[in-house]
Amino acid sequence: MAVEATANIGVVGLAAMGSNLARNLARHGNTVALYNRHVERTEKLVREHGDDGEFVPSATVADFVASLKRPRTAIIMVKAGAPTDAVINELADAMEPGDIIVDGGNSYFEDTIRREKAIRARGLHFVGCGVSGGEEGALNGPSLMPGGTEESWRTLGPILTSIAAVAEGEPCVTHIGENGAGHFVKMVHNGIEYADMQLIAESYDLMRRGLGMEPAEIGDVFAAWNGTELNSYLIEITADVLHEVDKATGRPLVDVIVDHAGMKGTGTWTVQTALTLGVPVTGIAEAVFARGLSSQTVQRGAAAKAGLSGPQARLDVSAADRDAVIEDIRHALYASKIVAYAQGFDEIMSGAKEYGWNIDLAAVARIWRGGCIIRAQFLNVVSDAFESGDADVSLLFAPYFRKAVDEAQESWRRVVAKAVEGGLPVPAFSSSLAYYDGLRSGRLPAALIQGQRDFFGAHTYGRVDRPGAFHTLWAEPGRPEVEA
Amino acid sequence: MAVEATANIGVVGLAAMGSNLARNLARHGNTVALYNRHVERTEKLVREHGDDGEFVPSATVADFVASLKRPRTAIIMVKAGAPTDAVINELADAMEPGDIIVDGGNSYFEDTIRREKAIRARGLHFVGCGVSGGEEGALNGPSLMPGGTEESWRTLGPILTSIAAVAEGEPCVTHIGENGAGHFVKMVHNGIEYADMQLIAESYDLMRRGLGMEPAEIGDVFAAWNGTELNSYLIEITADVLHEVDKATGRPLVDVIVDHAGMKGTGTWTVQTALTLGVPVTGIAEAVFARGLSSQTVQRGAAAKAGLSGPQARLDVSAADRDAVIEDIRHALYASKIVAYAQGFDEIMSGAKEYGWNIDLAAVARIWRGGCIIRAQFLNVVSDAFESGDADVSLLFAPYFRKAVDEAQESWRRVVAKAVEGGLPVPAFSSSLAYYDGLRSGRLPAALIQGQRDFFGAHTYGRVDRPGAFHTLWAEPGRPEVEA
Repeated sequence: MAVEATANIGVVGLAAMGSNLARNLARHGNTVALYNRHVERTEKLVREHGDDGEFVPSATVADFVASLKRPRTAIIMVKAGAPTDAVINELADAMEPGDIIVDGGNSYFEDTIRREKAIRARGLHFVGCGVSGGEEGALNGPSLMPGGTEESWRTLGPILTSIAAVAEGEPCVTHIGENGAGHFVKMVHNGIEYADMQLIAESYDLMRRGLGMEPAEIGDVFAAWNGTELNSYLIEITADVLHEVDKATGRPLVDVIVDHAGMKGTGTWTVQTALTLGVPVTGIAEAVFARGLSSQTVQRGAAAKAGLSGPQARLDVSAADRDAVIEDIRHALYASKIVAYAQGFDEIMSGAKEYGWNIDLAAVARIWRGGCIIRAQFLNVVSDAFESGDADVSLLFAPYFRKAVDEAQESWRRVVAKAVEGGLPVPAFSSSLAYYDGLRSGRLPAALIQGQRDFFGAHTYGRVDRPGAFHTLWAEPGRPEVEA
Repeated sequence: MAVEATANIGVVGLAAMGSNLARNLARHGNTVALYNRHVERTEKLVREHGDDGEFVPSATVADFVASLKRPRTAIIMVKAGAPTDAVINELADAMEPGDIIVDGGNSYFEDTIRREKAIRARGLHFVGCGVSGGEEGALNGPSLMPGGTEESWRTLGPILTSIAAVAEGEPCVTHIGENGAGHFVKMVHNGIEYADMQLIAESYDLMRRGLGMEPAEIGDVFAAWNGTELNSYLIEITADVLHEVDKATGRPLVDVIVDHAGMKGTGTWTVQTALTLGVPVTGIAEAVFARGLSSQTVQRGAAAKAGLSGPQARLDVSAADRDAVIEDIRHALYASKIVAYAQGFDEIMSGAKEYGWNIDLAAVARIWRGGCIIRAQFLNVVSDAFESGDADVSLLFAPYFRKAVDEAQESWRRVVAKAVEGGLPVPAFSSSLAYYDGLRSGRLPAALIQGQRDFFGAHTYGRVDRPGAFHTLWAEPGRPEVEA
């Protein structure tokens, strides 16, 4: 029996993310074709959530493709890597020129560039689309970062717009740029998320160990901070997590949780890519390394046994000064956060230049205001800074953020200095501050490094007073300088 | 006319590094076959340096191979990447089973692993060999880090031993391990070199801008430091560079050099690889990022124009305290250096585990004592620590280094705190210190990060009081915990 083409969108891969995305699509008036390798999942989705809207389940890829109206548009929600390649090829074999294959997984953008090229050569469209917000976002409104061609966006745009989160009346989706641009921006989004979380963790640690406060008290502090410029989803849930009491023991849940942070690779990719691009993303790097260190159980166990010396991780603060220190921590968190975002957007600018993408940074900031983990009020001002052109070179140069850092920085420096003296690790706070001080340095000691490199490797150096590359003949009498 | 097989070693690629290596080989009793794509270089070498020893020049690869005794052994000294692949294939085509191809360039170890596998499948040996010490080292004695099979080492070992640098009576060469082990260790060597140089640069900056000292004065300080536990080639040449006066202007040369540090990729690889392995190499990463930042001319120019606010990069120090602060800086440099080496060796340990290499870390430290850029007295105690088993988990746990950090750390903390308050960037000092404080923390705030991840992504967490993975149903009333 011939299958009738009734669906305007299809979803392949119906695990948690895929089925939630399919339900979200159905709830917003789309007719959603469904396919999953194991048909039980497809059946379960229709059985349990069939009244969300119009579903067209298929047991085979052929039927799934036949159930789609042209241009056939299918979103793949399967594991990144080989499984994604397999599904893409199956679909491409069954589809026809003009059809659109969308990869909604967390694929590495270089893979997306490669796939887009291969699929385009077959006359089809391939769109790598970042989907942020986890399972809850997939169901109730994610932040969406599609790449691919303008032509595919004309078909896909209205569909994605129908399901995206809405922030201040605007849907959290925009066409990021060609081929891998969407997955690139999603990757950096996740890197910024790592930095955001690490900065919150350092703030927490300063209060927990540094000031000896209880988790619930610190939860109150974060709840209060959520009423300031730090207002954000992550600050809000931090308060929630810190207020949580473990049922089994009656202790604060955070004290019962093993302190080994996990990760899934996007933070690592963000830093590795930044290194290739030559962009310093020190805050994100320290966040990734801090998670790595936390999970080095052998080293940490040995460290405890060896009894590495140092201060007792307390801040030297009188009871009367406690509130002032907490306020200092808030400023330090805010300033460091501004640096982390500046570095992340720097990476997007560099990536756009390297890969030839025309990315609207203001729009990127706007679509992160809802649906995703780093959603925050803060992104309004970020968006404004890019919109006005004030952040063309760096977020840190926009007057709004210059002023914010100016106002925060005395606190920021006090907190880092106190932490360093008290033996509390604040790697993301201190590296963000070092970056800021490096950036504003008229002269950096990199001149000495160039001198050393010329000495031992004849790598040459530039001169401040005239163009060209120069080399000192260090081993010769009188050490003459030659133009290289 | 048939070419007679008289050479026991050959060199392909006779640019600066290759010809110096060939001369070094000839000077030490080897009969050296020579080949270069453009024969002029071969002729020039024989013409200018023929009396260094026995050379057997060839104009074709066929003659070059025919001039080698079996097992034919040839060292390739050409550009990493495609040129290296091309020469390897040419040689492999002309050689026979049992022959040995050595890549002496700075190849990425994953390429070496791939090449070794391909060449081994053809019955030949392939050895990736790290060569450190630049042109001068190649001529007068490099530090050599060969990988490859034990069998190839039996032939190659005596040849490499004849030309290696000698430190405290021992040749600076050892068989590092199979396939890519040699290039891996060379890569990390370079990463450590980046950290070493950055730490010296930060020390310099603290004195130059922070204390307002002149380069020559600071050169005196480094010369004096070279008589302490900091004794090393890099400290020595730093004094030399700082004492150098520019002929054209009469100013200190370092003040005339453009402050944009260049790099060639091995530092970047070290950090990218560490990220993949999950090893925090924060000191090396900050060093690489600091070079990146120094070369971001657009950003730095805009920063100067925007006038980012902050302290004037001066340390608040009275004249009477100056010498004490300089001594603090020396301690900070030493402690940070220990951390950088600990992180680098950590990466080697992780790499060895990941790739199945049996690497003798004490031997690695010993062969770095001469011939290479990071050569230093310090490596004797590093070697002892690994020899004794005290550094099995980390250099930081060996009693010698525990004591060294213990004695240095008050100074270290004072320097970082003062720099942070004075607005001087010390990213490698502060990240090394944060790593140390993180490592010795009984509890890290990573527990909060796990709580956040469980909240927004159901990533689960471990409990300190029982095994398993747990998830709190954050959205359900009463927030029950379930075992995942």
